[in-house]
Amino acid sequence: MNTGRLEAFSDGVIAVAITLLVLGISVPGKSSRHSFAHQLLHQWPEYAAFVISFLTIGIIWINHHSMITRLRVADHTILLLNLVLLMTISILPFATDLVAEHLEQPVAAAVYAAAFLVMALAFSFLNRYILLARPHYLGTPLSAERRRQILHRSLTGLVPYAIAVPLAFVSSYITLAICAALAVFYTTPAATGRDIRDG
Amino acid sequence: MNTGRLEAFSDGVIAVAITLLVLGISVPGKSSRHSFAHQLLHQWPEYAAFVISFLTIGIIWINHHSMITRLRVADHTILLLNLVLLMTISILPFATDLVAEHLEQPVAAAVYAAAFLVMALAFSFLNRYILLARPHYLGTPLSAERRRQILHRSLTGLVPYAIAVPLAFVSSYITLAICAALAVFYTTPAATGRDIRDG
Amino acid sequence: MNTGRLEAFSDGVIAVAITLLVLGISVPGKSSRHSFAHQLLHQWPEYAAFVISFLTIGIIWINHHSMITRLRVADHTILLLNLVLLMTISILPFATDLVAEHLEQPVAAAVYAAAFLVMALAFSFLNRYILLARPHYLGTPLSAERRRQILHRSLTGLVPYAIAVPLAFVSSYITLAICAALAVFYTTPAATGRDIRDG
Amino acid sequence: MNTGRLEAFSDGVIAVAITLLVLGISVPGKSSRHSFAHQLLHQWPEYAAFVISFLTIGIIWINHHSMITRLRVADHTILLLNLVLLMTISILPFATDLVAEHLEQPVAAAVYAAAFLVMALAFSFLNRYILLARPHYLGTPLSAERRRQILHRSLTGLVPYAIAVPLAFVSSYITLAICAALAVFYTTPAATGRDIRDG
Repeated sequence: MNTGRLEAFSDGVIAVAITLLVLGISVPGKSSRHSFAHQLLHQWPEYAAFVISFLTIGIIWINHHSMITRLRVADHTILLLNLVLLMTISILPFATDLVAEHLEQPVAAAVYAAAFLVMALAFSFLNRYILLARPHYLGTPLSAERRRQILHRSLTGLVPYAIAVPLAFVSSYITLAICAALAVFYTTPAATGRDIRDG
Repeated sequence: MNTGRLEAFSDGVIAVAITLLVLGISVPGKSSRHSFAHQLLHQWPEYAAFVISFLTIGIIWINHHSMITRLRVADHTILLLNLVLLMTISILPFATDLVAEHLEQPVAAAVYAAAFLVMALAFSFLNRYILLARPHYLGTPLSAERRRQILHRSLTGLVPYAIAVPLAFVSSYITLAICAALAVFYTTPAATGRDIRDG
Repeated sequence: MNTGRLEAFSDGVIAVAITLLVLGISVPGKSSRHSFAHQLLHQWPEYAAFVISFLTIGIIWINHHSMITRLRVADHTILLLNLVLLMTISILPFATDLVAEHLEQPVAAAVYAAAFLVMALAFSFLNRYILLARPHYLGTPLSAERRRQILHRSLTGLVPYAIAVPLAFVSSYITLAICAALAVFYTTPAATGRDIRDG
Repeated sequence: MNTGRLEAFSDGVIAVAITLLVLGISVPGKSSRHSFAHQLLHQWPEYAAFVISFLTIGIIWINHHSMITRLRVADHTILLLNLVLLMTISILPFATDLVAEHLEQPVAAAVYAAAFLVMALAFSFLNRYILLARPHYLGTPLSAERRRQILHRSLTGLVPYAIAVPLAFVSSYITLAICAALAVFYTTPAATGRDIRDG
């Protein structure tokens, strides 16, 4: 299969998932006793989770582009691993909504970080398959050294999320803060040169 | 009509339908008596139905791609049959939501399997029209033998869904298990070589 | 502006609007006194409205494609008239939901037919601007005779919707039936040759 | 990165965001005491906010196209600034819903105008980065004079929104009227020649 339509479909799913995040931000009701402005401020976890998830999905989109761009062709396994990756991305609006509405619940924060971890795992898995099992599908050959380097960085990116999951049971705020810090970190040039560009 | 825009529009509808599935996973309310973690686990049919539907729509997308790729041009009948196929795909978020919330209802499970059956029928119908009535639209000619083979496989794919519908009245769980088994089966290389690639 | 991106954006909006229609089909609640199967059957207006709107938007997509394909380039006015057309399409999930939930209300059925009328008007208007004011934008020149013919058909297509609106106050069912008949009619080869292809 | 996929992904997000606006228009309930037609009329702020936001997002899409079309390539910073712009666009369905349901609340109208202001700021920022820091990425070189002119117009476009925010505390209606006037103004040829085409 030509990678053009694979990219187009993946772009579609990621674009819809990232835009559905807004449905998790609720409009305060009329019958509330609290003042309207107070209510809007009080739902800050909804805004925080929206921004964190939006940036993280956006970075995954950039990384996904880098990964697929390297490919000349795709086989059935790549289509399926990509489908699993898209599934982990498209569940993020649920995980985001969960933590946004229930930041007081450690389980909600743990599920949120776990959703990012699973997405990063699916990404690494697809990357691993392409670089180790199908290196001849690459448009420009990469040295074994370079491929090992990319995979190493891809794996080290999992560690902070793996740590953030159990930390939710210490404090949901710590988990949310780690997810926020990672989203911001991955947008920096430092991360670009080392983790993102290499996907 | 050039098939490029037909593919692009179909990809768009399928990408939105597959991503809307996540709206069927509900966030537990605050006022619940059950513990939060228990509630999250208790709604496992929502996760199961999400995964089954996501994989099934994903496989249909792959098959759809294989089918349209064979075409050089499309006439009005192909556009309309494709529109009907897209309609059967875009109703799946409803059928998924229905079974996810009402697994205790045999009718819900029957509707779920029936929705997949109707989608597979619409797919076979479009395939049939292309291969039997418009073989000259194909980019690379296929032998009559090969076309019969593709259609045969396409039709045998309907049988398990047709069986799963009435079985819902024995047990909703059996129907759900058949749909799950089919989703997993179609992702295997065996299915690829025999049913999917030939779409 | 090149028409490629105009088509891509229009396809995106139409694909999302057509797929959002499914959100109007509601899942029956658990606490109902009626049997589950009865409830599912009882909400038949939701299925009917879904199918009518899906087919109608699908046909508009086909027509839109025919119209834009004729263009070599697009100016600012075309972009804006197209934007207005997309606005009338993207409000259809609301109009569909309205009639599906309130078929007993004449106003709901009138709004539904009026929404189709306004969409058809926006389509005619864009078509008119291209064919009368910007004929030199067409890739292949059309004779004045042929352009008059296309516009005439485009305008006669408005009449049934204009009749369906006031008829809602006689009976909502008549209006729904007219909209259904039009959706089916436009999919026939007769309509293709006379109204749709010429869009 | 080639700008093709950047455009495709941006188009996807903008198309979904603009189409999600319809979800903010609510279907009146059955149990209402008011007459159905009265209720439909009474929710006019939902229609007004839908139209204003639809036109504004549509114009941003046209402007975005003009901006990206100028680029030959995109670096990581452009991808990130574009991602932030898309984030400000995709939050608009929430802001639209907020003002549509709570026009009586000055804070809601202020948030609405502020959301447009932030979107316009993100747009100006991206434009500024491209024109001042990466002029060599442009396909056709622009004179320093012309670039200053574009940026000046881009910045003066922020002023009315900045004024509309505090005016919400005088009257929500004034803020809504300013946002409506701007949406209409930007669709006129006058604005095209001076503010929009130049992005």
